[in-house]
Amino acid sequence: MDLIIKNGTIVTPVESYKADIAVKNGKIVAIGTGFSEEGAKVVDAAGKLVLPGAIDAHTHLAMPFGGTVSADSYLAGTRAAACGGVTTVFDYPMQRKGKGIIETIEGRKEMCDPEACVDYAFHCCITDLNDGAILDEFEAAVNYGITSFKCFLVYKKEGMMVDDGTLVKILLKAKETGAMTNIHAENPDVIDLNIEQFLKEGKTSAWYHYLSRPEFVEAEADKRAIHWAKSMEAPLYIVHMADKEGLEAAITAKNDGHEIYIETCPQYLEFTCEVYKREDGRNFVCSPPMKGQESQDALWKAIESGAIDTVATDHCPFQSYEKDWGKDDFTKIPNGCAGIENLYPYMLSAANDGKISFNRAVELCAFNPAKIFGCEDKGSLAVGKDADIVIYDPNKEFTISVENMHSDYDHTIWEGKKLHGYPVKTFVRGNLVYEDGNFVGKPGIGQFVKRVGRK
Amino acid sequence: MDLIIKNGTIVTPVESYKADIAVKNGKIVAIGTGFSEEGAKVVDAAGKLVLPGAIDAHTHLAMPFGGTVSADSYLAGTRAAACGGVTTVFDYPMQRKGKGIIETIEGRKEMCDPEACVDYAFHCCITDLNDGAILDEFEAAVNYGITSFKCFLVYKKEGMMVDDGTLVKILLKAKETGAMTNIHAENPDVIDLNIEQFLKEGKTSAWYHYLSRPEFVEAEADKRAIHWAKSMEAPLYIVHMADKEGLEAAITAKNDGHEIYIETCPQYLEFTCEVYKREDGRNFVCSPPMKGQESQDALWKAIESGAIDTVATDHCPFQSYEKDWGKDDFTKIPNGCAGIENLYPYMLSAANDGKISFNRAVELCAFNPAKIFGCEDKGSLAVGKDADIVIYDPNKEFTISVENMHSDYDHTIWEGKKLHGYPVKTFVRGNLVYEDGNFVGKPGIGQFVKRVGRK
Amino acid sequence: MDLIIKNGTIVTPVESYKADIAVKNGKIVAIGTGFSEEGAKVVDAAGKLVLPGAIDAHTHLAMPFGGTVSADSYLAGTRAAACGGVTTVFDYPMQRKGKGIIETIEGRKEMCDPEACVDYAFHCCITDLNDGAILDEFEAAVNYGITSFKCFLVYKKEGMMVDDGTLVKILLKAKETGAMTNIHAENPDVIDLNIEQFLKEGKTSAWYHYLSRPEFVEAEADKRAIHWAKSMEAPLYIVHMADKEGLEAAITAKNDGHEIYIETCPQYLEFTCEVYKREDGRNFVCSPPMKGQESQDALWKAIESGAIDTVATDHCPFQSYEKDWGKDDFTKIPNGCAGIENLYPYMLSAANDGKISFNRAVELCAFNPAKIFGCEDKGSLAVGKDADIVIYDPNKEFTISVENMHSDYDHTIWEGKKLHGYPVKTFVRGNLVYEDGNFVGKPGIGQFVKRVGRK
Amino acid sequence: MDLIIKNGTIVTPVESYKADIAVKNGKIVAIGTGFSEEGAKVVDAAGKLVLPGAIDAHTHLAMPFGGTVSADSYLAGTRAAACGGVTTVFDYPMQRKGKGIIETIEGRKEMCDPEACVDYAFHCCITDLNDGAILDEFEAAVNYGITSFKCFLVYKKEGMMVDDGTLVKILLKAKETGAMTNIHAENPDVIDLNIEQFLKEGKTSAWYHYLSRPEFVEAEADKRAIHWAKSMEAPLYIVHMADKEGLEAAITAKNDGHEIYIETCPQYLEFTCEVYKREDGRNFVCSPPMKGQESQDALWKAIESGAIDTVATDHCPFQSYEKDWGKDDFTKIPNGCAGIENLYPYMLSAANDGKISFNRAVELCAFNPAKIFGCEDKGSLAVGKDADIVIYDPNKEFTISVENMHSDYDHTIWEGKKLHGYPVKTFVRGNLVYEDGNFVGKPGIGQFVKRVGRK
Repeated sequence: MDLIIKNGTIVTPVESYKADIAVKNGKIVAIGTGFSEEGAKVVDAAGKLVLPGAIDAHTHLAMPFGGTVSADSYLAGTRAAACGGVTTVFDYPMQRKGKGIIETIEGRKEMCDPEACVDYAFHCCITDLNDGAILDEFEAAVNYGITSFKCFLVYKKEGMMVDDGTLVKILLKAKETGAMTNIHAENPDVIDLNIEQFLKEGKTSAWYHYLSRPEFVEAEADKRAIHWAKSMEAPLYIVHMADKEGLEAAITAKNDGHEIYIETCPQYLEFTCEVYKREDGRNFVCSPPMKGQESQDALWKAIESGAIDTVATDHCPFQSYEKDWGKDDFTKIPNGCAGIENLYPYMLSAANDGKISFNRAVELCAFNPAKIFGCEDKGSLAVGKDADIVIYDPNKEFTISVENMHSDYDHTIWEGKKLHGYPVKTFVRGNLVYEDGNFVGKPGIGQFVKRVGRK
Repeated sequence: MDLIIKNGTIVTPVESYKADIAVKNGKIVAIGTGFSEEGAKVVDAAGKLVLPGAIDAHTHLAMPFGGTVSADSYLAGTRAAACGGVTTVFDYPMQRKGKGIIETIEGRKEMCDPEACVDYAFHCCITDLNDGAILDEFEAAVNYGITSFKCFLVYKKEGMMVDDGTLVKILLKAKETGAMTNIHAENPDVIDLNIEQFLKEGKTSAWYHYLSRPEFVEAEADKRAIHWAKSMEAPLYIVHMADKEGLEAAITAKNDGHEIYIETCPQYLEFTCEVYKREDGRNFVCSPPMKGQESQDALWKAIESGAIDTVATDHCPFQSYEKDWGKDDFTKIPNGCAGIENLYPYMLSAANDGKISFNRAVELCAFNPAKIFGCEDKGSLAVGKDADIVIYDPNKEFTISVENMHSDYDHTIWEGKKLHGYPVKTFVRGNLVYEDGNFVGKPGIGQFVKRVGRK
Repeated sequence: MDLIIKNGTIVTPVESYKADIAVKNGKIVAIGTGFSEEGAKVVDAAGKLVLPGAIDAHTHLAMPFGGTVSADSYLAGTRAAACGGVTTVFDYPMQRKGKGIIETIEGRKEMCDPEACVDYAFHCCITDLNDGAILDEFEAAVNYGITSFKCFLVYKKEGMMVDDGTLVKILLKAKETGAMTNIHAENPDVIDLNIEQFLKEGKTSAWYHYLSRPEFVEAEADKRAIHWAKSMEAPLYIVHMADKEGLEAAITAKNDGHEIYIETCPQYLEFTCEVYKREDGRNFVCSPPMKGQESQDALWKAIESGAIDTVATDHCPFQSYEKDWGKDDFTKIPNGCAGIENLYPYMLSAANDGKISFNRAVELCAFNPAKIFGCEDKGSLAVGKDADIVIYDPNKEFTISVENMHSDYDHTIWEGKKLHGYPVKTFVRGNLVYEDGNFVGKPGIGQFVKRVGRK
Repeated sequence: MDLIIKNGTIVTPVESYKADIAVKNGKIVAIGTGFSEEGAKVVDAAGKLVLPGAIDAHTHLAMPFGGTVSADSYLAGTRAAACGGVTTVFDYPMQRKGKGIIETIEGRKEMCDPEACVDYAFHCCITDLNDGAILDEFEAAVNYGITSFKCFLVYKKEGMMVDDGTLVKILLKAKETGAMTNIHAENPDVIDLNIEQFLKEGKTSAWYHYLSRPEFVEAEADKRAIHWAKSMEAPLYIVHMADKEGLEAAITAKNDGHEIYIETCPQYLEFTCEVYKREDGRNFVCSPPMKGQESQDALWKAIESGAIDTVATDHCPFQSYEKDWGKDDFTKIPNGCAGIENLYPYMLSAANDGKISFNRAVELCAFNPAKIFGCEDKGSLAVGKDADIVIYDPNKEFTISVENMHSDYDHTIWEGKKLHGYPVKTFVRGNLVYEDGNFVGKPGIGQFVKRVGRK
């Protein structure tokens, strides 16, 4: 054995029990007791929880957006991930008009590979079908390990939106090739008319960011996407669900037997639209925006009931000076917030507080993303899986601050948030990359996760 | 008195009772018994039902469409209306880019006025906001008597579609000015992709007209329009509802207290998509197409339960040689069918057969359209209303044929349909215009109905 | 003509219009203008509304209950009815073990006939099937004019409850014979266990009357009764609906096409359970008790939407000294409150305030009860109907007080309630019985209403 | 190690993977590879699935019922269980008037202990509260390991039914003491009236067993029990769910966040009410009876979606001569069928056929019953759990016959049913009790499972 983690409590999506874990060549080879420790590094996890590393299924690293580039490079973002117990990061490269899928991915893979501090995978955002050539490339992309494609139903002016016909074509081709269709659901036309009206009336504070894309703007697009997915009998994954009405439509469809997956983010679980009334409201600007209390309550209810499948971050931080561009005009604020390092600690703290079980936290942050997106070697502590392991101290108190984060951004919406319990060690395929507040890994250790398509 | 109709059974939306009706100066002045018949024309309606004239809230007369013009002129169309017991016809003039509403209406009013055999009103189809000038004109239009505006969510390539932002603007302005928003709900993008695919595969028969715009194509647009109407708290009138899922969404919204009105047409109650498999399937081509049996059953259930508000015809006939243009390519078939003369006889025959009450038939075809669209003097047999009256013989057998219709078209989808009971007399403001199978009125007798806005 | 009411605004369930009404031999013979006034009593209703007399479909006059007899005799109750614009009263005689239906009715009819100030009808409460003899009597009862039977799902200890098997038998027999089944829905077992517990704990104030029969106690029985009615495809009329969950179940069943009718009472629309915390809480004790704000809001929503069919009073007053029996023990308070004189003024005042239309008030209080319960000559102002007419002054202000009521009770839960608008005249079959605050009729003028069964 | 099962594919509720299992002292001590085989019995499971032993949460062994005693003694029943891969059996002792819970259980425990071939647990049926003494005993019962209590909403004449008040008391006390309330949901009053009617009409074949307790008879009781559980916020476990309407009500309540658990049985998944038309229809008589195709479809849909929690058998066989008592009168047929040996093979065969995953089969038959009913050492293959293990050959074909079953009954409703895949070995706490068609264990090896209450 290379590594033995002993005396801890192993947490799976369905149960918790005391046992040791033995690791060899980056894989979990045995779970039980009485293993020979000869030649192995031995870690004592007594009094601690032993968890699968989290998978952040939604990040935007080094992403050109809003007239700048998101503040975390692949290095900074994956370093922060490691320190937050995330052992696999999904990034969202953007296919641009005329470009192919694999071409798009390889460009980003080259950037990421030398910097990656944890393993990484890519969804691919589709913005143009290139007269059908993109659809023809789906099969090759799936074989390459890219098994999920994202459609924006918004960002029409920015040239990123797909119309309903294109969405339906993608749903059908994804279904045929064993891929998943992810969608960002908001309605651009109604956002634009709201913005036009607000600017005309001189209503330019961050609060109007929310009012220009309120609950019903997201709900419409959610319901429309669900409608097409149901009509095509194709699977659908809705990213960053933030509103009650869309959520309920998704749950109804799931209950009717349709394959709809729902992701939400910690920011929607923690904040409401009230933050946009704050002096620093612009720092919270992301799309979709945080919604009202009713939506937040509905999200928590669905977290508890099992209706939500995954929690991911939509990590896309910008620096304060960039956020300040929109001080006097909310339309100029780059959209996005930090979160990659807070995902797992936040959800585990909720478990520690009794809102959900630790099993459910593991399911939401590790097991489900791996299963939904075809990461066969990830997502659980089972024999044969990658030894992506987090040791969690349920008794460690932690207060989030930009000072104790490991990203490159200069502020965080999570500043001051108190957490009960915190990760103390992170292993990526058996390699220790984080320990007691410090990144101890090596950039470049992260590997591309070649995913497998749906059957 | 000018006219006394005696001994008949008067039918209102809520009750039926024997009484005489006295008419003076085109108005109903008294209902009861024992009226002096001095100087009055007396009509004996013993054994007959006395009904308010029907209002066909949805017709397209002399309409340029599909590369031709619909086969019924205002004269032919309103003549047929009179012979089918319809005493008010709503036409749908189309506003074109750069044109104003009243300008558009007046052009059609001039055409219609000298030809009209029954009273007439106009909805106005909006295709372009003219940079907002159209919205600014809403109030004047309402004052002019045009209190309803139609939006196409389809016909994108034809330049008639409005996007969601425009729809929302219209909903809001209509609400503000006491007007109603009517919508034709189908999704153009998905229709286009279906058509593209079918043509590529050489699937060109009328059956593919249906398959290119199946249930889910209509349901999506229904649900989207309802969503916006609910979100804006604005009234909405959905024309020619033909599918179950959209219908159910509309009913749910109504039950939740939203002001949603539902119109369906006799063709959706009588035929299913199976007609498109017939040799002469192209003659049945209209949009939305007839749907499957489940949808038809749901429509009848809603007719019976009260959930559907109106039945109108979408009358838009084309000649056989025009329909034949699409013999080998369904996309070339002009869309539309005849119906104006069949509406009231069809629904009353259903009542005669016991499917619904005569009261309900009167509510659907006369009372509700008048109430919803602000025809204050129309829609019921009550003192003070226009004497638009139909005498109906419940014992008269009738078989529809192009031979006994009073339009200019050369075929009808209703050919051979047997009806139990039939109108024997129609009065427009006290003037007899139809009697026992013959038109006996005078073109030009029809007047423009100046409607009043919602409060 | 005997009577002409001129210049008023006639209100039907669906429209309002100015016209005169001519009455002869107690019947409406004409509606219109220009009637000869020769020999007729002429009443000028200018500026007033002319309404059909209300039908109070739920009263308990001279009823033995709770160890005493309800405070209003047939004389006092029907006199108060007349003064509140009620022209037909339904009473609820109670069939007792071994007694027949017609036998039961005739006993009460004899009491009522000489005293009745307005017309009267009877539902019959069934408490025992007498080994099936009662079911065998249904047809004769319907022929006699008794077309509705009430089942208590509560009052088990009092020997009035029917079990589910009996209820189902009654539903089936009522359906077969064209009768209606009315139910009082509460669950006795759970009430009893609550009472047992409260008494044990010394919780004896009126507030515990509510807590012993809270929302879910009524909802369960509502849902159960609806279930059996649906399963048997038999019509059902739920009396005094007071809770949201039961109401919603009933609405869902109606929307699914089942024949379920819903009655509520003014007290549930005006008061919530908070009244039971008042010093005089015992005066408000009735069963079911008033519920929470959510239920009241749901009731109003259903009043507005059309989902509720009728409003009636459950009039069953007791004197203060009788209510005082339960000063220290809520189980000793006779259950019931006054209302017969307040029904129509209360609902019309709501219309005057714009909450509902006057048409809807007329539908709820007159048209629907007549239609549902087979009072063919009642419920609307139409030619041929009984001239049961109320003249209503929308500008008259009125404050309810026991001083200005015309019953025999000595207090009222409605004390101090301000109403906008009030009836100024009531006619029963053309006879003036109430005028400007005074009863001007003659006891005994009221006649038994022989109802007709359902087809 | 005492036992090593190697080379098999381990199936958990959420994943499947190849690994070996090491067992010591009846417990699973390690899962992985490379274990020393020294001194251990080694079983090669190559090509086989390694599954947790099933838990049959619903059996009636040696039960006095219907004038006789169910055909399987504890010995025969648990022997059959072992041969069907069931390693824990729940029996349902019946508390009788005046008797205590633990007293009742101990009587049965004494009978069972010397005969048990697999481990066993007891639910306790409550038929009388003994003036509250039973409620006072709940806490002691939970401490004793009896953490679930069953209420019959049916069998009124038999003295087994509890009324709604008693049910509510039990729900509240169970909630307070960490116990679960199980219910058998059918409505006795309506069954009785149906039976009375059928017997009067001479309708006595087995088909009338179904018609006397059709879908709506079960649905009513399901909905009522759910209503009380929701109102009391108490957990509820509905046994042998067989109808669509009740199922849907339960699912709705679950989705609303209420703690409702649903059990169904293989017979409802395999047969419909059509079996009662067969010559041998009486052999299929059990209560609730099999329902129509719609119900069966709904059950399968809920099996697939995850809405149903457990599958158990309601095993309660009678001999042919006993069934024959009701040859000419369905009311004389003892109610119940065999199933204990068919549960796991049936559900696993469905998995093998692709209807559900093997993970889901394991969840339904092993993991969930253990979790819901507090069997802490049972239900999954995880380190620390009892070594209750089944080796399953997915390629073994098997046809059920009374000849190859291991019970004492003389016929089976499953005769002739072909299964794809079959268990080849069963271990109870590491002891081999079944191998290749033969029982190889020893009566008395089974132990009482002391369960833990809910937190």
